[in-house]
Parts: sequence; structure tokens; C-alpha cells
Amino acid sequence: MKIGIIKERREGEKRVAASADTVKKYIQLGADVAIESGAGLSAAVTDDAYSAAGAKIVKTAKEAIGDADVVLKVRKPTQDEIPLLKKGALLISLMEPHKDKAIVDGIANQGVRAFALELVPRITRAQSMDVLSSQSNLAGYKAVLDAAAVFGRAFPMMMTAAGTVPPARVLVMGAGVAGLQAIATARRLGAIVSATDVRPAAKEQVESLGGTFVAVEDDEFKQAETAGGYAKEMSDEYKKKQAALIAETIAKQDIVITTALIPGRPAPVLVTEEMVKTMKPGSVIVDLAVEQGGNCPLSKPGEVVEAHGVTLVGHLNVASRVAVDASALYAKNLLNFLTPLIDKESKSIKINEEDEIIKASTITNDGEITNDNIKALKDEP
Amino acid sequence: MKIGIIKERREGEKRVAASADTVKKYIQLGADVAIESGAGLSAAVTDDAYSAAGAKIVKTAKEAIGDADVVLKVRKPTQDEIPLLKKGALLISLMEPHKDKAIVDGIANQGVRAFALELVPRITRAQSMDVLSSQSNLAGYKAVLDAAAVFGRAFPMMMTAAGTVPPARVLVMGAGVAGLQAIATARRLGAIVSATDVRPAAKEQVESLGGTFVAVEDDEFKQAETAGGYAKEMSDEYKKKQAALIAETIAKQDIVITTALIPGRPAPVLVTEEMVKTMKPGSVIVDLAVEQGGNCPLSKPGEVVEAHGVTLVGHLNVASRVAVDASALYAKNLLNFLTPLIDKESKSIKINEEDEIIKASTITNDGEITNDNIKALKDEP
Repeated sequence: MKIGIIKERREGEKRVAASADTVKKYIQLGADVAIESGAGLSAAVTDDAYSAAGAKIVKTAKEAIGDADVVLKVRKPTQDEIPLLKKGALLISLMEPHKDKAIVDGIANQGVRAFALELVPRITRAQSMDVLSSQSNLAGYKAVLDAAAVFGRAFPMMMTAAGTVPPARVLVMGAGVAGLQAIATARRLGAIVSATDVRPAAKEQVESLGGTFVAVEDDEFKQAETAGGYAKEMSDEYKKKQAALIAETIAKQDIVITTALIPGRPAPVLVTEEMVKTMKPGSVIVDLAVEQGGNCPLSKPGEVVEAHGVTLVGHLNVASRVAVDASALYAKNLLNFLTPLIDKESKSIKINEEDEIIKASTITNDGEITNDNIKALKDEP
Repeated sequence: MKIGIIKERREGEKRVAASADTVKKYIQLGADVAIESGAGLSAAVTDDAYSAAGAKIVKTAKEAIGDADVVLKVRKPTQDEIPLLKKGALLISLMEPHKDKAIVDGIANQGVRAFALELVPRITRAQSMDVLSSQSNLAGYKAVLDAAAVFGRAFPMMMTAAGTVPPARVLVMGAGVAGLQAIATARRLGAIVSATDVRPAAKEQVESLGGTFVAVEDDEFKQAETAGGYAKEMSDEYKKKQAALIAETIAKQDIVITTALIPGRPAPVLVTEEMVKTMKPGSVIVDLAVEQGGNCPLSKPGEVVEAHGVTLVGHLNVASRVAVDASALYAKNLLNFLTPLIDKESKSIKINEEDEIIKASTITNDGEITNDNIKALKDEP
């Protein structure tokens, strides 16, 4: 059984799908591992490190994956890479399956079995394979540092002979994995941190990290808070009161970090242009949802822009901005996904088609798109 | 009495010499304040904010300082700005008096009395005027964030479902004002921090911030440690042992921040090319001494470069990268310097020529360079 890993070629992608640690594990499982020379460089893994772990370093992408039984990638292949894949090979990667259907068609036509890591179900057994969590965690960390990079002030309070520098005020909107790590990081740096979430149950998590939960805490809220972790539709009256409180809160912030995503749909607008206008000059908004249309209509994908005296940070692929750790965790997620597919006796691939993880994540097999939602997508022009 | 403030025109300079707070104070002291429109924008102070504090906003630099009795600046004037200054005016600024003597000559010829804030003596009474401290403090903070910006890993330890991310290891070389703030900031972010300094007495300060002091702690060190705050020449044998320990320590770091300056002389080399070669791929060096020749021969002024797999960060004027807070503290330092020069009865300038702060910081007066060291500098080609 041969595993192949190539250099990621999509723009701005610095991650790599294997670490020296995971290569070592694959070899212990009986696999041969071939890696394209330089594949790990942007994630600080040298050819020598892979080599020492037992991988064979090859010069071209074709040599790495042309005869591989399993291809590990970070991002779905480009049109140029698809023809390199062997018929019947497994491809395990982030697939962004709802974007650029032509790529998925190409993979199906190539006869490759592709697994989309985004579609791994969020069940306990799959936690260690959850790339969305591992990458969002680092994106949340980096969002705070990206804010600090352009913010003209320091985060912590500083008492100096020339007077006291007040601490920065940071609001994190959305207390999922990225939001919680953003809260923790901003707190570490010494900021005064508050957070919002549509789930009243998030209050406890926000407070456990030292943040203040911004919510109108009336009876309706208190009932919803104890009702469990999932979002419950609140009354229109409540939504109105909450929106007013959030608008008032945003006006007092130095930094707002937005993290709200809805799977398969455009991101919700959390910070309107009117709200941006109420912020102090020199404030910063980091929009982690910019790739899905943004939580603020003024942020621009891949750019840092200024509007109404506020800097809007719209970096794409934020996890890749912490490529070394992001790759290490991603590679570990892949290892945890692939290991159960390897039969220890025969040292070859043996897939349990009844496994719910396999069923949910397989998107192409035997020349067909197997996921009904993706099959139903219209071809884009 | 009129005080004038203009937009700083030197490349990359985002600070401004007054804040809305200090403008208010000057007006309370009986001064008129004129500010060139837009002077504070890059430090997040709008014309409106200055205006509300009582300043008059004027369109040109000439209107702001042409008839000003006191001109407040961050950086010494350019050749174009000198002719705008009124004969007999006071100019209070950072002067970099040992660089570009032609500017100092020009200021003297213009009949302006210039005070170089770098030359304010480090006595207790002048602590609140100490711009070197206030700006170094912020530079030390920003150095850590500049490292984090290019570092492909997170600083804190993170325990995740996909495994544990180890904390970053940070070495701070030189435990002055910048170094101590760098230690504090790296610790806040969750790194394991160690530090070096030629003064054994710095050990206590480093440890009080949660850092480990890197030193060969033999009898000679222990005697020097208790001998007081100033650097004591150690024996050659001690220096050799210490150098070996530091080389060994650098090889284990993810991030090295160097802060060693010697006033009026090139910065000492602390990290040799040989040492850089021993560092792990993906490591980062931030050289805060790069403007004075650098603590590492591979760092380049104003650039972020890579050598032997290590990223070397050589940003210039690091305090200006935190322009809002840096301006607020700098403006406060200026206020503290200028206030004792204003006679409360007559609301005009009255200088006590016997004051040691005045004597030390005056560099030009009555058409002459009054500082012997500067006068002795050769004209550069």
C-alpha cells in the first residue's frame, strides 16, 4: 500500500497533509510513503525530516501520487492534479464540496474514491478526525494576532511613568471553536473581552474563559439558557432588545472578531455599516467569515481595508497563516481517519461500508458522485 | 504663546506629538495650539478630536508652525521643514543627534533652540519625560506580536482532540525596558520564556516576570549579581562559559528577540550566523537593534528575510507600529517636559538655564550647536 503526499498548489495554501510524526505512524502500519520534494517547506517540515521518518522524497507530484493507493491532501486537487490520480485510489482531503462542482465531477470521472473531511459527522468517535475543529481553533487564535498586528495600541493595561495605557476592549461574535479560542487569546494578551452567541447556553463557556456574555438576560433568555446547547429560536421582541444591546456594545469596542458561519449558506451579517460608523477611529474588525460572504458587509476577501476610520481585516484561509501547527493537527486528524481503514493483517485498505463516518464523508466512488446534495448542485458557468 | 504641531513626514512615521489630552492641558496652561490638518490621523486622532480639545486646525505645516513659539515634533525636521521654523522658537523632538548632522546645522542656522529628548538625563525627576522608556516599552510589546505574526505556530500550549500543541520557546536577549516588556508579553501569550543580560542583577527582574534567566551561575556571577544594577566586566573565562550556554540555549528556541543597544555605537552581535544555523526550521528572530546595525548580522533594516530556514524580522521604528499608544505616551512625555518651561503668571516661556535637564538636552541655541559631542561630529558626505 502506497500513500502519496504532494505540495499544495492552491494560492496562499501553506499547510501540508503529513507531518514527520504521521509519516512514522503510516510506516509502522506497513505503508510506503512518497512525498514530493519541498511539500512541507512552508509548514517548516524539511525533506530531511520526512526522510528521517521513513518517507521517500520524490521530485515531482506525479511520482508522489501517480501510483499511490491513498492520496492525502489539505485542499481538493486542481484540474491539473486530477489526471495524476490513479483509478481506484482513495483521496482524503478538505473538498469544499459545495464550491466548484467541476472538480468533484473530474474526480468522479477519474475513478477516484474521495472523502470530504468536512462531512465527517460530529460524533464522539470522530472528534479526533475533526479538521474543522482543529483548524478553527488555530484560526481563532490567529484572528486575535491579526487584529493586534494592525491595531495601533497595545492589548494589556500598562502602567508607565508617562501614564497608564488602558486595556483594549475586544468583542467576539460567535462562541464556537474559533470564537472560544479568540476569547482565550485576547484574554491572555490582557484585553477586556466580551462575547455574543445565538445559543444562550454559550454563556457558561464564555464566562469560564474570563469573558463577559453580552445578552439581555430576561426570563426568556434564562429559560433558553438551561434548554441545552443548540440554538433555539427566540421571540421577535427578544431579538430586538438583543440587537439594540449588541449595537450599543459594538460602539464601545476597540476590536470586534466575528466568527459566525452557517454551513452551506452565506454568513449572517452581524456588524452593519451603521455599526461600523459608531466605532472609534483606529478600531479593528476581523471577519473570519469573509470567505462565506462576511459577517460585515464592508470586509473584503483577502484584503485589509479601512472604512469610516475602522480597519477591516479579511484574510483568507486563516488556519494556513499558522501553517506549522495547523499542518501538524490536520495531519493527525488524517492519521486518525485513515488508520481504521487499514487492515492490520493484510496491510491494505479494507473499508467498512456500513460505518457512518465512511458513509457521510464519501463523495465520489466508482465513477459517480455518491453524495446526493453535491450531485444536485448545478454546474457553475 | 503659540504651540505648533505638524504631520510627521519622515517615511514610515505614524506617530504624532500631541494627543487630545495634551492639547487640552496646553490650553489650560494659557497656550494657543495650532495643528496641521490630518496630523493625528495615522495615530487615530481626528481633526475633530483636536478641535474639541481646543486646538485650531490649519491647512498647512507653515500655518501650524510658521509663527509658533514652541514646535513639538516626534522626529527631527526635514531640510524642507527647517525654513518654516521661526527664529527664536523652541523645537522639542527626538533628534537622533548623532545622525545627519546637516539637519542640526540647519536648525542652528535657523536660530531655533532645539531640545533633543534622547539627551534628557535618566534622573528620577525626568522619568515622566523619558521618551526612550515609553517608546521602548511599546517596541518590546510589538516585537513579540511581530514574531507571532510570522511564526507558523501558536504561542500557548493547546490541548486538542487531535493532540497537544506544545508552547513556543522564546528567548529575550537584553533585559532593558523593551526586553522586560517582551518577556511579559510572551509570557502572557503562553510561551516558555527565558532571557539574558550582561547585568547579573537583571536576573531578579526577569524572574519576577516569570522568565528564566540564562546564566552560568558560578561564584563570580553570584558576586556580580549582588554588586548592583550596572554591568560589571566579567572575566574572560566566565564570558566563554556564558557564550557556550547562550549558544546552546539559542538552538532550542522557536523565537529569539534581541534588544541590545549601546548608545552612540553599533549594536553588539548577539546571534551569529553559526547560531542561526543551529535553530529549527520555522524559527523567528526579531532584531530590535537593526537600525543600529543589528544584534544579528543576517537581519536587514526594514525587511523580513529568511536565512537557513529562520525568519529574521527587521522592522524599523517599531514603536511607530503601535502608533496610537506610542503617540499618547510620547505626547505625555512632551507635556511633562514643556510644562516646567511655561511660566504660570506670564503664560510665556521662561527657561531655567541652570536646570540639568535643560543643559543636557539643549543642542542648538542662538545660532550655534551647543552640545560639544554633536559639534565635534564630522559632516557626512
